[in-house]
Amino acid sequence: MKAVGIVVEYNPFHNGHLYHLQETKKQTEADCLIAVMSGNFLQRGEPALVSKWTRTKMALFAGVDLVIELPYAFAVQSAETFASGAVALLAALYCDEICFGSESGKIEPFIEAAKTLLEKQNEYDIYIQQALQTGINYPQANTLAWNQLHLDKLDVTKPNNILGFSYVKAILEQHHPIVPRTIPRIAACYHDETFSHPSIASATSLRKALSGSIERLETISSYIPSYTKQLLEQYYFTYGTFHDWERYFPFLKYRILTMEESELQRIANVDEGLEHRFKQAIIEAETFSQLMTSMKTKRYTWTRLQRTCTHILTNFTKEQMAKMKKPTYIRLLGMSSNGRRYLQTIKKQLSLPLVTNVSRLEPHPIYQQEKKAVFAYTAIFPEAIRSKAIKEEYATPPITLF
Amino acid sequence: MKAVGIVVEYNPFHNGHLYHLQETKKQTEADCLIAVMSGNFLQRGEPALVSKWTRTKMALFAGVDLVIELPYAFAVQSAETFASGAVALLAALYCDEICFGSESGKIEPFIEAAKTLLEKQNEYDIYIQQALQTGINYPQANTLAWNQLHLDKLDVTKPNNILGFSYVKAILEQHHPIVPRTIPRIAACYHDETFSHPSIASATSLRKALSGSIERLETISSYIPSYTKQLLEQYYFTYGTFHDWERYFPFLKYRILTMEESELQRIANVDEGLEHRFKQAIIEAETFSQLMTSMKTKRYTWTRLQRTCTHILTNFTKEQMAKMKKPTYIRLLGMSSNGRRYLQTIKKQLSLPLVTNVSRLEPHPIYQQEKKAVFAYTAIFPEAIRSKAIKEEYATPPITLF
Repeated sequence: MKAVGIVVEYNPFHNGHLYHLQETKKQTEADCLIAVMSGNFLQRGEPALVSKWTRTKMALFAGVDLVIELPYAFAVQSAETFASGAVALLAALYCDEICFGSESGKIEPFIEAAKTLLEKQNEYDIYIQQALQTGINYPQANTLAWNQLHLDKLDVTKPNNILGFSYVKAILEQHHPIVPRTIPRIAACYHDETFSHPSIASATSLRKALSGSIERLETISSYIPSYTKQLLEQYYFTYGTFHDWERYFPFLKYRILTMEESELQRIANVDEGLEHRFKQAIIEAETFSQLMTSMKTKRYTWTRLQRTCTHILTNFTKEQMAKMKKPTYIRLLGMSSNGRRYLQTIKKQLSLPLVTNVSRLEPHPIYQQEKKAVFAYTAIFPEAIRSKAIKEEYATPPITLF
Repeated sequence: MKAVGIVVEYNPFHNGHLYHLQETKKQTEADCLIAVMSGNFLQRGEPALVSKWTRTKMALFAGVDLVIELPYAFAVQSAETFASGAVALLAALYCDEICFGSESGKIEPFIEAAKTLLEKQNEYDIYIQQALQTGINYPQANTLAWNQLHLDKLDVTKPNNILGFSYVKAILEQHHPIVPRTIPRIAACYHDETFSHPSIASATSLRKALSGSIERLETISSYIPSYTKQLLEQYYFTYGTFHDWERYFPFLKYRILTMEESELQRIANVDEGLEHRFKQAIIEAETFSQLMTSMKTKRYTWTRLQRTCTHILTNFTKEQMAKMKKPTYIRLLGMSSNGRRYLQTIKKQLSLPLVTNVSRLEPHPIYQQEKKAVFAYTAIFPEAIRSKAIKEEYATPPITLF
């Protein structure tokens, strides 16, 4: 059976995702489509609109065969760490190809850039350091270094190009026999907040249009499959809310206010005196957005700050992060009958444990952080629902769609 | 001017407190009545029903001349530490007498017991250790040791007798020229939850009858002065809530769940493996009361556990606690014109700084913890009210009643 991997967040699953998924199947003639998906917190440092379980259902309804959790320790990270964790998991599942959507749409520039970077890593690092010293932020420094290495065939100001590049680089770096492939993204840019296409819009624009309100679900219904709509409705009626940063702000503010600066300093990503700036800014901030706006500088991008807030909320420390080099288990969130069949064929060759019951994982450093992420994610629920949601993390067997 | 000190929590101020206050004035012929009062968290490890500012107003209306804050580091502690902090502050303000309510009502047994204990501290410590090793809790061990020292004239199973004894012991220990005096408590026992007197009931029974609901305020109105009633109403309409542990439970649970056991271990009072027990019990607990009930044992009393929960909520560490030997400033929360006049007479002899503007105190270890207590106390408010309440801590000048 031919297995093809994709890396997803599905926040929420929309028609653009469906297009990518169907094109991937068509172009690769995959027998088994494997998605590595971020859990409850996402790469850009946000809580997912709905839990991992509901997003797993969306993926299965759309035709994914296996949904694997990308652990928090790799998901809420820079593109490089995110990609390296995701690729390691897809390789561990013996994927033949990895297929990603990109603004570029052609695979050659990705491969060329990844090869160059691997050869000239030292040179690149020096360019980056030099550029950062001028006071610009990391994405800007990256673009500069990129141009200095004559890699301008690939536009790395585009977020999906950066991710794609990182997947290819991880494949080469980790020496996996995986073929990278890309499909051009259609119609909607990642950051687009307007609707310019009748049925395709970015997840960002959909979340914005939804604004956390079930009443506004109808306004986005032409951009999402009907099962996404039903699953969002079902989630809202079961849990009473969608998730966004503002809902977590009381907890984040409580936490930052009652922490010592020395404790803040221990949190992943809190460096260069960021602890003082958090302590100062939090006193006046009455919303998450106010906190971000008052802290954002040329140097600290919104995404970087947001990721740092997620680490504070979930209590993810530098010490923990330093220990987590690569994924050490494969956590199955969901599977189709096809997926199950594929797992049967590779079961005996797996080099990482395939986990369907997380209670067997403890105490496991990477899973410890996953639990903390679940505890933080469920903190906004009323108590009875919170207990239920926490139990789901432990007791939910992989979701099956047979 | 003759100054007399009392130690209070006023949670809330009721007719029993008024009786004690008036009797104190009458019996001591005080020119200035000074109350040292716990801030937002109380000796038994509970959030105060209403903030320190509102309780300060109650005290002033009732006839107190100076209200001084007992810092968190001394307030949320055993009777011994609580009393030692309070007595140090009253001594720093040159009180001539300290007058406390007690079940006993006679001062001699208190003095006798305090003297004996100071002489035989080693013997007492050995008795306590022996008793604790049999698996009983601290209050029980204390009663046993007490009897072994032939101090049974003073019934130390009564909470106000323990506090009174601790005041007298602190006076002797700290060598202050202060005369201790006691007034018998009337009608209601501290722990009484029933109403057996037409106008006197314990604060515990009043809070229970109120159950955090403004609608039930009428049911307790014959047990509290009219200004207490008005101030409670005003507080509720301004802040939208009264305070009790259940309202803080979402924050406490979030915190315990996302803490590492090693972090829990650093919190004051968390010892003897209590960190494991917290981690286990919190998963199932859906209310604060469930958490307490499931954790309470012969060894760990409700009060001790509650105090530990307060330390977790406010992030009060063993390291901090170890540094706080005695009060280092006198924070004025409120004064009458009489109180102001008294302060004028002693101003130049004060050995501790008299603080009316806390922003000048930072960074000050004891005040750092006070701030964390305020941050935790205000966490349950909606954001706009929370910001206002935090500013009040910094910007409220002492409340004056002239």
